Amino acid sequence: MAAGTSATPRGGFTKGNTDRVKEILSWYESDNPGVKTNLARLMNAGRLGGTGKFVILPVDQGFEHGPARSFAVNPAGYNPNYHFEMALAAGCNAYAAPLGFIEAAAARHAGEIPLILKMNNHDVLHDEKDPLPAVTARVSDALRLGCVAIGFTIYPGSAEAQTMYEQLREAAEEAKACGLAVVVWSYPRGTSLSKEGETALDVAAYAAHIAAELGAHIIKVKLPTDHLELPEAKKVYEKVNVPRATLAERVRHVVQATFDGHRIVIFSGGPKKDSDDAVFDEARAIRDGGGFGSIIGRNSFQRPREHALKFLETIMKIYAGELT
Amino acid sequence: MAAGTSATPRGGFTKGNTDRVKEILSWYESDNPGVKTNLARLMNAGRLGGTGKFVILPVDQGFEHGPARSFAVNPAGYNPNYHFEMALAAGCNAYAAPLGFIEAAAARHAGEIPLILKMNNHDVLHDEKDPLPAVTARVSDALRLGCVAIGFTIYPGSAEAQTMYEQLREAAEEAKACGLAVVVWSYPRGTSLSKEGETALDVAAYAAHIAAELGAHIIKVKLPTDHLELPEAKKVYEKVNVPRATLAERVRHVVQATFDGHRIVIFSGGPKKDSDDAVFDEARAIRDGGGFGSIIGRNSFQRPREHALKFLETIMKIYAGELT
Amino acid sequence: MAAGTSATPRGGFTKGNTDRVKEILSWYESDNPGVKTNLARLMNAGRLGGTGKFVILPVDQGFEHGPARSFAVNPAGYNPNYHFEMALAAGCNAYAAPLGFIEAAAARHAGEIPLILKMNNHDVLHDEKDPLPAVTARVSDALRLGCVAIGFTIYPGSAEAQTMYEQLREAAEEAKACGLAVVVWSYPRGTSLSKEGETALDVAAYAAHIAAELGAHIIKVKLPTDHLELPEAKKVYEKVNVPRATLAERVRHVVQATFDGHRIVIFSGGPKKDSDDAVFDEARAIRDGGGFGSIIGRNSFQRPREHALKFLETIMKIYAGELT
Amino acid sequence: MAAGTSATPRGGFTKGNTDRVKEILSWYESDNPGVKTNLARLMNAGRLGGTGKFVILPVDQGFEHGPARSFAVNPAGYNPNYHFEMALAAGCNAYAAPLGFIEAAAARHAGEIPLILKMNNHDVLHDEKDPLPAVTARVSDALRLGCVAIGFTIYPGSAEAQTMYEQLREAAEEAKACGLAVVVWSYPRGTSLSKEGETALDVAAYAAHIAAELGAHIIKVKLPTDHLELPEAKKVYEKVNVPRATLAERVRHVVQATFDGHRIVIFSGGPKKDSDDAVFDEARAIRDGGGFGSIIGRNSFQRPREHALKFLETIMKIYAGELT
Amino acid sequence: MAAGTSATPRGGFTKGNTDRVKEILSWYESDNPGVKTNLARLMNAGRLGGTGKFVILPVDQGFEHGPARSFAVNPAGYNPNYHFEMALAAGCNAYAAPLGFIEAAAARHAGEIPLILKMNNHDVLHDEKDPLPAVTARVSDALRLGCVAIGFTIYPGSAEAQTMYEQLREAAEEAKACGLAVVVWSYPRGTSLSKEGETALDVAAYAAHIAAELGAHIIKVKLPTDHLELPEAKKVYEKVNVPRATLAERVRHVVQATFDGHRIVIFSGGPKKDSDDAVFDEARAIRDGGGFGSIIGRNSFQRPREHALKFLETIMKIYAGELT
Repeated sequence: MAAGTSATPRGGFTKGNTDRVKEILSWYESDNPGVKTNLARLMNAGRLGGTGKFVILPVDQGFEHGPARSFAVNPAGYNPNYHFEMALAAGCNAYAAPLGFIEAAAARHAGEIPLILKMNNHDVLHDEKDPLPAVTARVSDALRLGCVAIGFTIYPGSAEAQTMYEQLREAAEEAKACGLAVVVWSYPRGTSLSKEGETALDVAAYAAHIAAELGAHIIKVKLPTDHLELPEAKKVYEKVNVPRATLAERVRHVVQATFDGHRIVIFSGGPKKDSDDAVFDEARAIRDGGGFGSIIGRNSFQRPREHALKFLETIMKIYAGELT
Repeated sequence: MAAGTSATPRGGFTKGNTDRVKEILSWYESDNPGVKTNLARLMNAGRLGGTGKFVILPVDQGFEHGPARSFAVNPAGYNPNYHFEMALAAGCNAYAAPLGFIEAAAARHAGEIPLILKMNNHDVLHDEKDPLPAVTARVSDALRLGCVAIGFTIYPGSAEAQTMYEQLREAAEEAKACGLAVVVWSYPRGTSLSKEGETALDVAAYAAHIAAELGAHIIKVKLPTDHLELPEAKKVYEKVNVPRATLAERVRHVVQATFDGHRIVIFSGGPKKDSDDAVFDEARAIRDGGGFGSIIGRNSFQRPREHALKFLETIMKIYAGELT
Repeated sequence: MAAGTSATPRGGFTKGNTDRVKEILSWYESDNPGVKTNLARLMNAGRLGGTGKFVILPVDQGFEHGPARSFAVNPAGYNPNYHFEMALAAGCNAYAAPLGFIEAAAARHAGEIPLILKMNNHDVLHDEKDPLPAVTARVSDALRLGCVAIGFTIYPGSAEAQTMYEQLREAAEEAKACGLAVVVWSYPRGTSLSKEGETALDVAAYAAHIAAELGAHIIKVKLPTDHLELPEAKKVYEKVNVPRATLAERVRHVVQATFDGHRIVIFSGGPKKDSDDAVFDEARAIRDGGGFGSIIGRNSFQRPREHALKFLETIMKIYAGELT
Repeated sequence: MAAGTSATPRGGFTKGNTDRVKEILSWYESDNPGVKTNLARLMNAGRLGGTGKFVILPVDQGFEHGPARSFAVNPAGYNPNYHFEMALAAGCNAYAAPLGFIEAAAARHAGEIPLILKMNNHDVLHDEKDPLPAVTARVSDALRLGCVAIGFTIYPGSAEAQTMYEQLREAAEEAKACGLAVVVWSYPRGTSLSKEGETALDVAAYAAHIAAELGAHIIKVKLPTDHLELPEAKKVYEKVNVPRATLAERVRHVVQATFDGHRIVIFSGGPKKDSDDAVFDEARAIRDGGGFGSIIGRNSFQRPREHALKFLETIMKIYAGELT
Repeated sequence: MAAGTSATPRGGFTKGNTDRVKEILSWYESDNPGVKTNLARLMNAGRLGGTGKFVILPVDQGFEHGPARSFAVNPAGYNPNYHFEMALAAGCNAYAAPLGFIEAAAARHAGEIPLILKMNNHDVLHDEKDPLPAVTARVSDALRLGCVAIGFTIYPGSAEAQTMYEQLREAAEEAKACGLAVVVWSYPRGTSLSKEGETALDVAAYAAHIAAELGAHIIKVKLPTDHLELPEAKKVYEKVNVPRATLAERVRHVVQATFDGHRIVIFSGGPKKDSDDAVFDEARAIRDGGGFGSIIGRNSFQRPREHALKFLETIMKIYAGELT
């Protein structure tokens, strides 16, 4: 039974943080209490509150891929309120979106769901091979909109990666000083990488590690394949025989590569899949590999609302250990 | 039953804001979503979460009156952790304290209880007749410590009042831009007022109105007596026959004087009372007069812990309407 | 025929500025187009739109005199919305109030009525002989709240006058750079003046002139008596025989003293008068003496709503020349 | 024989922090790793390194009382190098002095002894009753001089106390951001207090509490007498019967008043005492009462060098528990 | 016997700086006492404390080469705590790493080991021929994390070298003003150089000299071969017959090229070598050539922990002169 459903006035966190939340917070001991507070808010919100697991709803695809590609299949998604309400109804830990989508509905949903402001964005009207997203919002926007974190995308492998790293450093420094958490989308991409290499295990692990070294509190990467891209890395993987046959093993490797599991790593749902079960299997693999959860956009908002709610409930049950 | 007690992972605000919380937030529509978010956090936390009623634990008496006067009767209160844990265990909406007390325990209780940073403080080692508190913290401290609001004391009636008003203006402007709520302690005091006048009905109503005009989101005043202090005001009260015989009537007048009930007004518990019932009667009067709740320091932490928890539970039941 | 009174839909500025509005704007040709735009908004709003005449509703008495003295006689006035709605229904040119009253209702009445933010305020809980109001808002507040002007009070004659003049200079400089108009309440007061002297003709004219010299666009003074306060001035008035027998003559002198009528000078209504006719006679004198209008607070909101609307309509008709 | 000349290279902290140092650091968990590093440096330096006990050499008496009063009895002390060498030879945890004394010898003793820069100072050429020290150095000076902490004096009870508190807030905020620790000398003084009251138990406890609330990491107060100064406090001390007969009991009370022992509180040695044993007895009382150590200026540098070294060695043995 | 092992409470630097440390510090007499203090801290820490010799543990390979290439062979190294503990247990002078690795464990190891924050980093997901690392941290990060120095990589020979030199200048200027030491990794690389030329003697000497000219306090270069790359330089080397047959001779030349031995020059261990003896021989050559020590990453953390500790102990004994 969710909080606040009884006749008794519901109360927020009257029990305090769970042991698991405290353990995760202990990994961030260089951070100030403000950052820890917002990390706790993320971990205490929604259906998975207190478990240290995450299901986050991101909706930046309108900007990144275009509105019709993103919303025409379920037109309710054109409306910014739809996603706040979806994240709330489904019991997500947070909702992440660019400036405009947050501005459009943050006031009427004040305090209902932790918000992550996506600070940089890229569109495909000009789709360069070595992309550099535009920085489309500031830390001060995150504060005035009541967000708990900033979100920032880097493309390791792009010829423009250095610029993104430096933009991230600047944004992260300011965000941390203001007590905001830093969520980094680390998506390998660019002329140095093959298409297959973008999700190669070695590349995914490397991308997650870079984000952690840059000071990210929460790192989002794509689910890796068993491909190995970089010749020097391949030698090591094969010599040491890093397990990578199953998705759970690959998730485990990425988590290990991210400070031996001492940073929160979550995985993206990727393009819409027709099969719910395929996504559920991914969630099981993330859970079994020690991953911290999923960030599921298209697979949420491109399904009809009732279907999406049922779908997200199943994923959360998988993370909560209520379903095997 | 409080949130998070079932086997199911507890979830934060999965139902969203109640109608009452939405109504109260609608009074603050000039404010940005960040301020609304933090007001919602205050209203959604603790045992009274969602009701729009408040019981806040303030512990600035160590600074204001001295540590032994404040804590010797229940020495557990010398420890900064004690108050965080008390506020959490009792299900208060928030805990308010000066910089040092917040710094000492905010990290280990990150996210467990909304925090209000008391930004100015006064001590009685030099107890002037027209006091001016020192500004002992900044808005940036509130952000780095994960607070939802700043707290600021003004003394209308003091020859130094203008300075306090201007300090408040500056702090409030910065706080609001950062999405923090502004809580004002408005305590009439100074050479212009008689001792009796400090809690006179006309003076209390005036002090609450000034705080609201200065842009406070939440206003804390002392419970007023039926005394009338200012001759020009007295004429009007008597001519119009403002009801003031009962405490509930006087609370109703103060609430009316504060933008006709469109600002949150809460009332201080004052010095420790030996009788629990006396405080319960005050809470009933505040509730029946349309007040929004209590801020109860000495009557909480100067009682032994178990007694205090029981005592606060009763007060919350009164505000929740579970007790007449 | 005044703007907005006919059956023809009043429609913002579909006809452009009237000749009179253009003439008045021509006096402010050192100001930037932003300031002129906001002066034009003031002159084009309401029932008197286009005539160059003003009836402004100010409600700062809650702060200045206390809430009960101000609103108990007509308790609807405790509610900040009441005054926005009154100013709109009556067809006033503008509504002026301190920060809190503006914040409380500006969003829901966005764009309905030009707003003047009273930037400094004084209360009578500590009522010193040489008062210095507190600066309770900033130009940035006026911008974020959508105001057309700042309002600032000076007390020529106070030992603190220099401080006020310098605060005004700073505020006016910033306001003008941002395209906001500057409205100055110039109220002689302080230990240097006799009680009678506060409204003496020489003093009133002097106070209006100082405000104009300080860069005010619109100047508000009290209606002067025929008393002369300053000995050196008295000599001149008597030698030159400045006409001052009638109120219209005295108004004419004040207007003359204010850059020979090249600044907008309006007159305050003073404390509530039981007789409507007394106020109407004052309006006639202001009109006949070349004054630009009235700022009427207590005589508006201390009357019952329907009475107040009728009362204000009559005053506007006097200014519009529809009544003799 | 200099360090490092033996066959075994000496090593700094090759064993890491002791459990006691870790425990003390855990009280400062809102602080960044830089502050914790400098607190650890203070606790790991000198003969008492690792014990969590402190003996600090302060030499600001030249400024505060005049050079001859301070140094004529042992003229070696006129030389700034003397004190660095004394602190080092005696194995003190730190040396504290104003800007000039630090500048004069910091380079040649780089890294040999942790330094505390006294940021404000007061002289007696003008000895006002409500003193306000001058701020004579900045945080940037502490960084360029290689200091581990800033030192700041407040005089609770002075009419100027608010100013000092606000200066301290500003300095402490900057110091903490730069990773420097904040040491506060809290010396009650001013027209509100009797001479006896300056060291009264209630006043000393209050002064220590204020410093902690202002965010001090280390607090230095004078040893309290059993006098009680403030009437309201006296009532409580007598009612609750706070033990205060012995110096150890009084130290225990001050430590309790400072966040229940969760802040480092050290005690000043006061004017030079002819009897070594009197100082040793004080050290025993500080140790037995749970105090964290002594800051001993005049009793160190006004004794001849060899005497002083022997004297300090005995005090350190008392704190280390090597002497009863 | 290491400090702190006796019954006597261990004391940090109670003996002061050794003559050798004082001599080395004398080379930096243009620097402020803060820089000298942090240089002294580096020279006084660990097993080699006081000797003026260095063994530093750097762990930036996760960023520079990828996590699996760096840590898969000894997976304990994925954990950021592992390296702090290794540096401490081995008695290294310092630990150097990028922002994320420092942030992850600096608080729990506060003060235990001098830290060097690697301020710029490069990854090989996009491995351009003329690389420009990203600046991934700031001097303010070094301060808040309690570091003694910043570390900065330059690639002389890269088409982007000028940019790096200017970034270094800016970082070094700020670091020195704050009392932080500046450690420069000077690695020739880029399209202007042959692969062999990157470690050519003339190039290595040149790279070390450039770093010194840019104001580095400590310079890290690769061990040079006897290859000579630049034709103009080659002529001189051969004409003057600079000794370069042995590694010790080549080290001696690099040290000479770096201000005739008046700057600290240390040498990198390079890729993991299977033979411990090969590394020991290099250390002997560095020692015999007058080098100041080694910075050993992969050869430390890619060995199993016990092996690595034994391995580092041997190297330190070589530098300390305890082994020939």
